[in-house]
Amino acid sequence: MFKVGIIGATGYVGVELLRLLLNHDKVTVTAISSSTFKDEEISSVYKSFFNKTTLVCKDKSDVIDKCDVIFTALPHGLSEEIAAEAISKNKKVIDLGADFRLECEDSYEEWYGKKFTCKDIHKNSIYGLPEFNGSKVKEFNIVANPGCYPTSISLGLMPLLKNNLINTKNIICDSKSGITGAGRGLSLKTHFAEANENFAAYGIGSHRHTPEIEQTLSYMANENVEVTFTPHLLPVNRGILSTIYCQPKDKLTLEEIHEIYKKQYENEEFVHVLPLGQTAEIKHVKYTNNCHISIHQNYRKNKIIIISVIDNMVKGAAGQAIQNMNLLLDLPQNTGLKLIAPSF
Amino acid sequence: MFKVGIIGATGYVGVELLRLLLNHDKVTVTAISSSTFKDEEISSVYKSFFNKTTLVCKDKSDVIDKCDVIFTALPHGLSEEIAAEAISKNKKVIDLGADFRLECEDSYEEWYGKKFTCKDIHKNSIYGLPEFNGSKVKEFNIVANPGCYPTSISLGLMPLLKNNLINTKNIICDSKSGITGAGRGLSLKTHFAEANENFAAYGIGSHRHTPEIEQTLSYMANENVEVTFTPHLLPVNRGILSTIYCQPKDKLTLEEIHEIYKKQYENEEFVHVLPLGQTAEIKHVKYTNNCHISIHQNYRKNKIIIISVIDNMVKGAAGQAIQNMNLLLDLPQNTGLKLIAPSF
Amino acid sequence: MFKVGIIGATGYVGVELLRLLLNHDKVTVTAISSSTFKDEEISSVYKSFFNKTTLVCKDKSDVIDKCDVIFTALPHGLSEEIAAEAISKNKKVIDLGADFRLECEDSYEEWYGKKFTCKDIHKNSIYGLPEFNGSKVKEFNIVANPGCYPTSISLGLMPLLKNNLINTKNIICDSKSGITGAGRGLSLKTHFAEANENFAAYGIGSHRHTPEIEQTLSYMANENVEVTFTPHLLPVNRGILSTIYCQPKDKLTLEEIHEIYKKQYENEEFVHVLPLGQTAEIKHVKYTNNCHISIHQNYRKNKIIIISVIDNMVKGAAGQAIQNMNLLLDLPQNTGLKLIAPSF
Amino acid sequence: MFKVGIIGATGYVGVELLRLLLNHDKVTVTAISSSTFKDEEISSVYKSFFNKTTLVCKDKSDVIDKCDVIFTALPHGLSEEIAAEAISKNKKVIDLGADFRLECEDSYEEWYGKKFTCKDIHKNSIYGLPEFNGSKVKEFNIVANPGCYPTSISLGLMPLLKNNLINTKNIICDSKSGITGAGRGLSLKTHFAEANENFAAYGIGSHRHTPEIEQTLSYMANENVEVTFTPHLLPVNRGILSTIYCQPKDKLTLEEIHEIYKKQYENEEFVHVLPLGQTAEIKHVKYTNNCHISIHQNYRKNKIIIISVIDNMVKGAAGQAIQNMNLLLDLPQNTGLKLIAPSF
Repeated sequence: MFKVGIIGATGYVGVELLRLLLNHDKVTVTAISSSTFKDEEISSVYKSFFNKTTLVCKDKSDVIDKCDVIFTALPHGLSEEIAAEAISKNKKVIDLGADFRLECEDSYEEWYGKKFTCKDIHKNSIYGLPEFNGSKVKEFNIVANPGCYPTSISLGLMPLLKNNLINTKNIICDSKSGITGAGRGLSLKTHFAEANENFAAYGIGSHRHTPEIEQTLSYMANENVEVTFTPHLLPVNRGILSTIYCQPKDKLTLEEIHEIYKKQYENEEFVHVLPLGQTAEIKHVKYTNNCHISIHQNYRKNKIIIISVIDNMVKGAAGQAIQNMNLLLDLPQNTGLKLIAPSF
Repeated sequence: MFKVGIIGATGYVGVELLRLLLNHDKVTVTAISSSTFKDEEISSVYKSFFNKTTLVCKDKSDVIDKCDVIFTALPHGLSEEIAAEAISKNKKVIDLGADFRLECEDSYEEWYGKKFTCKDIHKNSIYGLPEFNGSKVKEFNIVANPGCYPTSISLGLMPLLKNNLINTKNIICDSKSGITGAGRGLSLKTHFAEANENFAAYGIGSHRHTPEIEQTLSYMANENVEVTFTPHLLPVNRGILSTIYCQPKDKLTLEEIHEIYKKQYENEEFVHVLPLGQTAEIKHVKYTNNCHISIHQNYRKNKIIIISVIDNMVKGAAGQAIQNMNLLLDLPQNTGLKLIAPSF
Repeated sequence: MFKVGIIGATGYVGVELLRLLLNHDKVTVTAISSSTFKDEEISSVYKSFFNKTTLVCKDKSDVIDKCDVIFTALPHGLSEEIAAEAISKNKKVIDLGADFRLECEDSYEEWYGKKFTCKDIHKNSIYGLPEFNGSKVKEFNIVANPGCYPTSISLGLMPLLKNNLINTKNIICDSKSGITGAGRGLSLKTHFAEANENFAAYGIGSHRHTPEIEQTLSYMANENVEVTFTPHLLPVNRGILSTIYCQPKDKLTLEEIHEIYKKQYENEEFVHVLPLGQTAEIKHVKYTNNCHISIHQNYRKNKIIIISVIDNMVKGAAGQAIQNMNLLLDLPQNTGLKLIAPSF
Repeated sequence: MFKVGIIGATGYVGVELLRLLLNHDKVTVTAISSSTFKDEEISSVYKSFFNKTTLVCKDKSDVIDKCDVIFTALPHGLSEEIAAEAISKNKKVIDLGADFRLECEDSYEEWYGKKFTCKDIHKNSIYGLPEFNGSKVKEFNIVANPGCYPTSISLGLMPLLKNNLINTKNIICDSKSGITGAGRGLSLKTHFAEANENFAAYGIGSHRHTPEIEQTLSYMANENVEVTFTPHLLPVNRGILSTIYCQPKDKLTLEEIHEIYKKQYENEEFVHVLPLGQTAEIKHVKYTNNCHISIHQNYRKNKIIIISVIDNMVKGAAGQAIQNMNLLLDLPQNTGLKLIAPSF
């Protein structure tokens, strides 16, 4: 059994990670930390854990010392120093925040308003999107776990970009996320009476996931990719649906494109390309690490429309982090992640 | 007092129309009809009306005979003959279905699978989008009330198109609608346990509102406009939010575009252009005839993003129909429609 | 036109009051106040009011000075001094908080933890439940507007208690409220991701509305009434449904009880007794000042079960306050309150 | 590996059972049947199963022939004959319908309108509520899996009844259920736009679970128990919360009662008695086989109030059926059921 721990275990991502790790056969959650709920039992913070675990939130140093793999689920800017300390002790780190996602420090400064704190350790890190570069993850000590929106969009576009099939300067990503993406912090926007029966966009044209999306897509395309990305807040707990519009370069039929998608993902446990004529829906992937992708075009057949859905808390955060952990530990990718979505 | 009536009063659009008309000072609802609930009191079909009205659903001929203005809220294909009979008796007709929306019979046949039944009366009809062509409505006997999606999109794009500011061949309309748009008919898609906590697109690239949208936008632009339109189903009762992406022709600043929008709508009671920096949300227009529009761009400033929100049942259906009725009857447009959205 | 104003206009009750008063024909909202949003336009706090009113939040003294009728929508303990000042200037006050609801100072102290601040003005106040004691309201300067739960329960039980038909020591009130009852203040309990898809009781056996309920019911019964009251939080914005269990003294049939209810409320505009066999539902009264009551029994016929539903923000707060204002001003009770529930 | 199968696999209970059984280590789902979707892959009926199983819906005889344990998830009246055939072939049957729940044929006829079809096999059946009589389950060939409401209420009251602590003739059970309890069948009551933002009771005083509840409680109390039971429909997918009011016989303190509850359930994996002062909530048990119970009293201390929550589809149906299967197969009760509720 490997020993794992979570720094920032009481945020929404942290607690979802804990829930999934407790059902993972090959690891033991040895320590968790929380600055807000230090010394409290996790089962008193989240009563779902009542009688299911006796873990107590301790200091982050406790996690670093006792665990082989350390998950950091923290606001951006707080993980670099932790990672530096951990890898100095030969631990592995999986960061669910933004600290290691952008390779370019200037870009990080532009979008997050600060420079890298521990610049030298970034070379030890990899942006770990398993279906794109999973085979390399094991070679690194730090894995930057992708953001939720970038995951849905990158998986949705990878086959088109790798095969050079679309105009890389005219991509529209219209994404809609369940409200847990906004976290546990209180705000009027996430106050029930305000969010319920409402729907709105936010961060229009300037959301911080934009450079991360463009970085990944550019690697896939092997050229500079530009996207217009608009996130919206759905009045549901979980799920992201991205509707992606792009302009085909070639006159491929929808059937041909569909074949390319199926081929790309034929050996992937978690990414499922739906048969033509079907439409991906959030409910079919909720509470799982799956991504469903459906492929469409407009009636003039001059736009390709991709629908990509994931659970923002699982494939978009905690589940993908475990998938990355499995890669680090040389376990089958689906260990602890053989989840089927409840139909309701 | 004018006498008005509703044919198809027990569908969702019909009953919303009835609710609003009962609070209208200048008209009396004299007759209503329903094929499903013939001879039943409306208050037994919808208990919200208990003790509020004694209206009984009668035959459609009852409505035609007793009323000056007749609203038809029926599935497509059922309104033409009713309208023909009504105008032969010098009545006015406002059709909330699709029968008179498309001017081109070939287009109607292509999208709705049938030819016009009463072709000769179409010349007596006008597509009544008051903020676009309200001054002409009075000259016609039949008003085609716009569809819900087309209303949100047309109002959102009118200033750009009238001023020739965007590429008319590369417009993306990503729309999200509350579930009442799917009506009262039972289906698995609208079964609570299936729709709740779910989100999905439908009719991707081929929804019947597409030609209607393109027809209106083309009039506005005075050239052929092409859109890619994707509707989605939101797990809320009411509201439509359209996120519209377009490519500017000129290097206008966002401030200049905003001024053009404000000028366009400065005398309109129902269309409100939000200050720059604010974002239109569904909750601010629910249960009202208002349309809120906000204007944005992506961070590269090469895409304009318009958010346009309405209540699909009011400005997108029953409220706009009453606005058209007010125009027909030479009443102030806002009569019976001075509604403020409840904040929750 | 009477001049009215709201102290505490930006809380949920205050803003609902404003919305309804702006549509009231016989009054003008002359001033509003808010301590949190002082000097801000209400339309910037609640964008539903955008272009609908130019009212700005001022100081409470502004409201007291400029208005004939003053609504106070404040946390308990803050209204007494305002009321004292207002009535000294010959104004009328309608308090939507708890300050004047309990007649007995000891009881107030027991449940609210403080004594009356201005004890001498309490004699000028009346607990204004219009269907119970509406004819007396006009004689007072201060009206204590009933709480939301007490309104639903009092109207549900009045006919049984006035006619001495039930055991007054064994009444169970199991109430379920929409989340707006918890107000605009942020809390984990009302955080969307926590409240959505959840359901829970709170304040079990010890909610502050208990003594208010018992006070009103005791007046109705003309003897000491004891209730067990459990409130629950529903994941909906609006509405209260109270399921009330009581033990009949006599062997009246359900039909006879139903007749007694119908007779009690036959002249009331807002209280509707449903036909036997029907069941009151929240959706039929939402956004209205109506109360729907349905009457049932268990299969052994030894318990009477009453279902009473209201909109917690209208009949349970702002609407009933306007009804009380109409009584004070000698206007028909339904002025400004002729609302029909939207069916969805 | 044991071979198991489901007759009625495409209803909500059936499909939940399938989802849970596919994650059960010790059994293989060998066959499933559906009359509506015969010969269709389950993954085309419920896309959550896409790429997760290739099971195809076959005839019920296929299930009976191929499986050791057969689950029947059918409308009442359809399981008796299947069970008769199955046990004649030495199979075990777990019925999730109502056919074997009531022991008394007269009672069954009174509440379900028909007599037993295969009267002689009822002696081979047991009402399997594991925490009450789990040790006996193994001796029978047919297990009647308890209804969802009865499960929440029976577990909530067992300690009080077994210890003879309350008046058995004055028990009020006010229950609220998520909408999946109404199944997959379409109805206006479960149409999204009707159920959303609504709340209502149904079957007041006469729901078919009443005799089942009374039968179980009477066994627990060893005397005739009478309950007044009112179910309500919550606008959430899952969960049941029962608020139970009873009258104590003795002057036990809340602390003493709490100790009795803790003792009763100290060795139970799935039933958790919350610490005094905490309140059971639906979200803490969703998607699990757990039951949370909290204990309260009114302020006069003359009523005990029990809150009992379960997931209606798991502990209230499919999960408890698997728990019963584990008992039948001599597996640890929690095999395949070690589920922790997602916190959102």
